[in-house]
Amino acid sequence: MSSTKQRVCVIGSGNWGSAVGKIVAQNVQNFPDLFEQEVRQWVFEEDYNGEKLTEVINREHENVKYLKGIKLPHNIVAVPDVVEASKGANVLVFVLPHQFVRGVCEKMKGHVAHDARAISLIKGLDILPEGITLFSEEIGRILDINCASLSGANIADEVAQEKFCETTIGCRSVEDGETFFKLFHTPYFRVNVIRDYVGVELCGALKNVVAVGAGLSDGLKYGSNTKAAIIRRGLMEMRKFGKTFFGGVESETFFESCGVADLITTCSGGRNRKVAEAFVTSGKPIDVLEQEMLNGQKLQGTLTAAEVHEFLTARKMVDEFPLFNTVYRVIYEGAHPESIVRDI
Amino acid sequence: MSSTKQRVCVIGSGNWGSAVGKIVAQNVQNFPDLFEQEVRQWVFEEDYNGEKLTEVINREHENVKYLKGIKLPHNIVAVPDVVEASKGANVLVFVLPHQFVRGVCEKMKGHVAHDARAISLIKGLDILPEGITLFSEEIGRILDINCASLSGANIADEVAQEKFCETTIGCRSVEDGETFFKLFHTPYFRVNVIRDYVGVELCGALKNVVAVGAGLSDGLKYGSNTKAAIIRRGLMEMRKFGKTFFGGVESETFFESCGVADLITTCSGGRNRKVAEAFVTSGKPIDVLEQEMLNGQKLQGTLTAAEVHEFLTARKMVDEFPLFNTVYRVIYEGAHPESIVRDI
Repeated sequence: MSSTKQRVCVIGSGNWGSAVGKIVAQNVQNFPDLFEQEVRQWVFEEDYNGEKLTEVINREHENVKYLKGIKLPHNIVAVPDVVEASKGANVLVFVLPHQFVRGVCEKMKGHVAHDARAISLIKGLDILPEGITLFSEEIGRILDINCASLSGANIADEVAQEKFCETTIGCRSVEDGETFFKLFHTPYFRVNVIRDYVGVELCGALKNVVAVGAGLSDGLKYGSNTKAAIIRRGLMEMRKFGKTFFGGVESETFFESCGVADLITTCSGGRNRKVAEAFVTSGKPIDVLEQEMLNGQKLQGTLTAAEVHEFLTARKMVDEFPLFNTVYRVIYEGAHPESIVRDI
Repeated sequence: MSSTKQRVCVIGSGNWGSAVGKIVAQNVQNFPDLFEQEVRQWVFEEDYNGEKLTEVINREHENVKYLKGIKLPHNIVAVPDVVEASKGANVLVFVLPHQFVRGVCEKMKGHVAHDARAISLIKGLDILPEGITLFSEEIGRILDINCASLSGANIADEVAQEKFCETTIGCRSVEDGETFFKLFHTPYFRVNVIRDYVGVELCGALKNVVAVGAGLSDGLKYGSNTKAAIIRRGLMEMRKFGKTFFGGVESETFFESCGVADLITTCSGGRNRKVAEAFVTSGKPIDVLEQEMLNGQKLQGTLTAAEVHEFLTARKMVDEFPLFNTVYRVIYEGAHPESIVRDI
């Protein structure tokens, strides 16, 4: 690259990816000396009414499939090939379903700028009995670059409609933090940069387990005190999990948007809460509810609960996380939903 | 007193006082060597269908006026005279509207045991431009005893129905903390004792200002992200307020039931939220809404917002609490409700 300007690439173009692409493409316009004005976005190519989705997006400036009704800035360009999209990019924004991360990174390897830095907006963790991998670390490892993380109370449709919210960026490097702040912060999308990138990413995954607990409580019609208690206990177990198994996780992180605020949002609306509520009221198993309520998609919270349980079992620490454990037992071992208050 | 057993007296018998009286009277039965089995409860005498309310309560074992449908243990006795109720008491549980605290304490002075200790469940603060008085401190000062505080996500009706919740007791003395734990903790009403009694009491008052902010956001239909952001910012301003103006207030307190959990409950249901929402949607002033929605009772959150504003103005620190300030400006100075996101 002859230019010293930063080239930004957004990897992913679902509901959240499109909302984020809109922000990023608007923000580079505020810093013409700092960023290349064209932002490329990798879009997984699909057929849309007989046309290619990328072609429709680039003509209509709208992701008609995943973020209908929201116009995108003209300087964001949909690109169906991930290597072409990310070639020479200095700033990589990862916002795609977690199961595609490794494959996409392997393809990109060797094509991004050597001084590139990345940020992960991916929800989820890779939890195996032998250990936990953060997606930011996985991206960093494969591409041999630094990777930050972003998470917060950020329901995509509300962000796309420019309703006020906050988000948290966890970033080891102060300089990268400044770049990401410029790329993401707007008057309606308020960014707070902290150093604890691990805590930011953990919150985004573990909150879903707590939301299952909150949903069980809703299903039992336990009311507002109980739900607040479950949310609070959940927040404390999220923090304990982070502090027990990772260095550098700080209490303060759980006061950030990625912590308490995202947890509140996830436990008030959200599919994890909703399906868990139906689990109690309908008596149907989770996989049936996934078919009926989520078109067969897997529920994140129950999956994470199982992974966390396996991880804790391997360390003989199940009993130290009674809420996580109870969610697991209710969903997978037939424990009575009432355990959600009896056993925590 | 010839007995070494503790005599417990509950001062107040509204909705919350009755729910708490039930817990306390049940719990003394678990510790017959420690507590006198009769618990006296001061009940402000009223007429109830031509009978005295205290007589109805003592015959029916039910506070038919303020907690209908909930049976009280037989060992709690309603007493219409506060001096008689508290004579020789070693443990005083204050749970009455804040405007009656001083008058009641003045009457009790000299009649309680010299080694008595108290706990305040009173919501509110006495905020004047020259300073803030906690009701626990005021009770302690007038009666010359130690006074702890209790606050949490504790909607009275849900507690009375024995729905699971948590609460926080703030208590300087470890020994008193143990006594209060025995008196209040049950499997459905989980007590956590901490030392920061100031923080506990502050949370119970300041949360109502935040709930007004959350209600404005609801009135504007801002959705879940925005409300979570307002709750989070509010929690941070509550903490900053405590740490700025009081010694001994700790961050950890805001993770307790009295902090984050009570705030969540108050911002999801609750009259402060509801009236503030109607303030936006109806365009009517607060005093009209108080007439229409609260039978003329004063809304706590707007009152506290005004007191906090005066207190901060006297210290030239209004700008350091943008959420509190914006709530004040919207309610009292005609600022547009949208300021709740624009100006924080």
